[in-house]
Amino acid sequence: MKLDNNIPYKLILEENEIPKQWYNVRAHMKNKPAPLLNPATLKPMTADELSAVFCRQLVEQELDDTNPYIDIPQEIQDFYRMYRPAPLVRAYCLEEKLDTPAKIYYKFEGNNTSGSHKLNSAIAQAYYAKHQGLKGVTTETGAGQWGTALSMACAYLGLDCQVYMVKVSYEQKPFRREVMRTYGAKVTPSPSDTTAVGRKILKEHPGTSGSLGCAISEAVEAAASQEGYRYVLGSVLNQVLLHQSIIGLEAQAALNKYGVKPDVIIGCAGGGSNLGGLISPFMGEKLRGEKDYEFIAVEPSSCPSLTRGKFVYDYCDTGMVCPLAKMYTLGSGFIPSASHAGGLRYHGMSPVVSQLYHDGYIKAVSYEQTQVFEAAELFAKCEGILPAPESSHAIRAAIDQAVKCKETGEEKTILFGLTGTGYFDMVAYEKFNNGTMTDYIPTDEDLKGGFDGIPKFPGNE
Amino acid sequence: MKLDNNIPYKLILEENEIPKQWYNVRAHMKNKPAPLLNPATLKPMTADELSAVFCRQLVEQELDDTNPYIDIPQEIQDFYRMYRPAPLVRAYCLEEKLDTPAKIYYKFEGNNTSGSHKLNSAIAQAYYAKHQGLKGVTTETGAGQWGTALSMACAYLGLDCQVYMVKVSYEQKPFRREVMRTYGAKVTPSPSDTTAVGRKILKEHPGTSGSLGCAISEAVEAAASQEGYRYVLGSVLNQVLLHQSIIGLEAQAALNKYGVKPDVIIGCAGGGSNLGGLISPFMGEKLRGEKDYEFIAVEPSSCPSLTRGKFVYDYCDTGMVCPLAKMYTLGSGFIPSASHAGGLRYHGMSPVVSQLYHDGYIKAVSYEQTQVFEAAELFAKCEGILPAPESSHAIRAAIDQAVKCKETGEEKTILFGLTGTGYFDMVAYEKFNNGTMTDYIPTDEDLKGGFDGIPKFPGNE
Repeated sequence: MKLDNNIPYKLILEENEIPKQWYNVRAHMKNKPAPLLNPATLKPMTADELSAVFCRQLVEQELDDTNPYIDIPQEIQDFYRMYRPAPLVRAYCLEEKLDTPAKIYYKFEGNNTSGSHKLNSAIAQAYYAKHQGLKGVTTETGAGQWGTALSMACAYLGLDCQVYMVKVSYEQKPFRREVMRTYGAKVTPSPSDTTAVGRKILKEHPGTSGSLGCAISEAVEAAASQEGYRYVLGSVLNQVLLHQSIIGLEAQAALNKYGVKPDVIIGCAGGGSNLGGLISPFMGEKLRGEKDYEFIAVEPSSCPSLTRGKFVYDYCDTGMVCPLAKMYTLGSGFIPSASHAGGLRYHGMSPVVSQLYHDGYIKAVSYEQTQVFEAAELFAKCEGILPAPESSHAIRAAIDQAVKCKETGEEKTILFGLTGTGYFDMVAYEKFNNGTMTDYIPTDEDLKGGFDGIPKFPGNE
Repeated sequence: MKLDNNIPYKLILEENEIPKQWYNVRAHMKNKPAPLLNPATLKPMTADELSAVFCRQLVEQELDDTNPYIDIPQEIQDFYRMYRPAPLVRAYCLEEKLDTPAKIYYKFEGNNTSGSHKLNSAIAQAYYAKHQGLKGVTTETGAGQWGTALSMACAYLGLDCQVYMVKVSYEQKPFRREVMRTYGAKVTPSPSDTTAVGRKILKEHPGTSGSLGCAISEAVEAAASQEGYRYVLGSVLNQVLLHQSIIGLEAQAALNKYGVKPDVIIGCAGGGSNLGGLISPFMGEKLRGEKDYEFIAVEPSSCPSLTRGKFVYDYCDTGMVCPLAKMYTLGSGFIPSASHAGGLRYHGMSPVVSQLYHDGYIKAVSYEQTQVFEAAELFAKCEGILPAPESSHAIRAAIDQAVKCKETGEEKTILFGLTGTGYFDMVAYEKFNNGTMTDYIPTDEDLKGGFDGIPKFPGNE
């Protein structure tokens, strides 16, 4: 195998080189992401309104679009040191297999028990809840990575953790559920009879297997109805992208340390937390006119919010209890097909990512899931790591870029985010191995129902 | 949290500090491990005889008890660099939780897709098979970590991989099976109708759920009956301990780099590959009279080969097709209870570890599985990592040592081997979480059957 001089397999940072501040890309955006709206008044949500649902300091971070750097509290830094810096790996074996002149790097966030980057924000949100003197937090989880991450963070800090898990996942992914329980979380299949909204849904739709939207509604109600509890969310929000900027900051520091400048930066995009976190500091350089990069968001063809969605104000949840966010959306009523990339089955997209995409700073592509699993298998065999289906979307796009470089002879440097591992996704791999995995691309007619549910008010079209 | 000056959470080595030679502890043992015997002649197995089953260079390594250092081929070094150096972590959070003056370090081998240290030897054995121009290798797997590791190594080198998986595991652990299939391995539930010995067993015991002994017999037959195939094994053998010395060498290098000297070194022990690999270089120092350490092997009470076994020649497999090895054994006919530490359910113990234990260099303790899972849960909550049941035996012993230090006020430095992750062991965690896990300690009467099957010949008692 050909190795570059001075470029090891893993571009390692020392522990004391882990960033001590998060980077807030909103500070350098000319067009700021639009504020969250109160659905009753259509006025921007105030800090007071948001504080009923979220922790105070997280509300500050949510609303702060001017400070570019925000200190990471020491206790969060200590926790980060348990599993960070995350490896930045040169994909020498994949390059050789593809016989490409391109240089491929990936930032691997799966080397922790949550199996993904979600832990970066989970510990931050749990910390601020603890700091505020709260007893506990509530949340929802679908595929289970966010719920696992939050359970770990709460166990570490001694905070109560209540997770509403989409019922179909609760039953089909018992192992994820047990990981959360091992960390002491209370996991409830949603819809449940523990909340008014859950009981209402159960009455109207007996036998329903649940949805993320319903689980969000239950988690929000559970937080509101218990003294000393707040609701936390694993993606979409500005605060989450802020915490996830640790991914990009570390990647940037490691690349600078070894004198490498990426040309293309690729991330999978569901709610946007990983993509936004990875690209933030590089985007900052681009926004400030210091360097140029090509950014690519990769989403599943079955849930194409960027490539086929509308840039409007929409509900963040199916239950329509949350504020309105301006984002690329398929409509909160859109039900994505049962793809195996559970973490990418969200109807909307982070307002920050949406605004950057709308302003032309980010490109977007979509792939069908069999294409994605082909890439996952190739990657696993070359690079050893068994990737999560979500992460494999970025792998697919990186491979296609590298193959294009082979055709054109360009020696591009490609960086992509490998968000997590697929150990709890073996049902999907089994289908792929058996040749029984199918693809689904929604027709325009399929999308119409979701679009029809987008709230109508002046300026929202 | 109190942090020591100059001791980070993770004692990191650079890639170029990964050892380039394995350490062969046999070279410094006064009493060498006894040679393997041909069961027909009761004479030591010759290199020629062993070469019918194993690759040539592995046979050399198996028989070499004089060379202390053996070069690691460049291609294996390259592969090691994909997932090594493995982290050596200071367990600050666990220390704080235990309120102990002891300092606890663990060498974590679970940050690769095989989920354990098994990959260290799998890549070596696959490499030598490839180097000899073979087409493929056969093996057996129980819990599945070894089979996964070998599948990964073979996929990387383009070698065919045939795994005989104990039927009950094949059915109960479909996810492990799918990981192997994703890496291109052919996985056959054992006993199967693909071998004569499998067909014989199926005829005699229709409906049997298989055993490791039976799977070994099938894998050996499969290797012998196909041109260009050899059999490989994931533990017990001298060659495996040699490859696994990379664990101890890295740990030693990292500790030296930061000026730390352990007092107690702890590893779980099934076949002995992890324990032997971890302790080898430290044991070398002790054998050469340079430094002193306390070594502790930890085994399950349900399969107590060191603490209750006999040090005699015995068959390595239930099918009695393999050579005789002199080791601590419960008898090849001993059927351990269905504990959840599948990787520790082996009737015997590495001849190297057995000899060192017999000569008083290693102590051994045993624990019941609920004690082990209590330790696993505490560790997961403090340190984030969800440990494998096997590894958790070492955690239990390390915690007990640290608690003893609290009582005596001793500031011992404890090093233990954290061999892997428990992501595929959630059925066991679920039982523990639900309070339905039970313990089993065999009575003397239970052990008698196994002992009765040990071959009788002069000197073997």
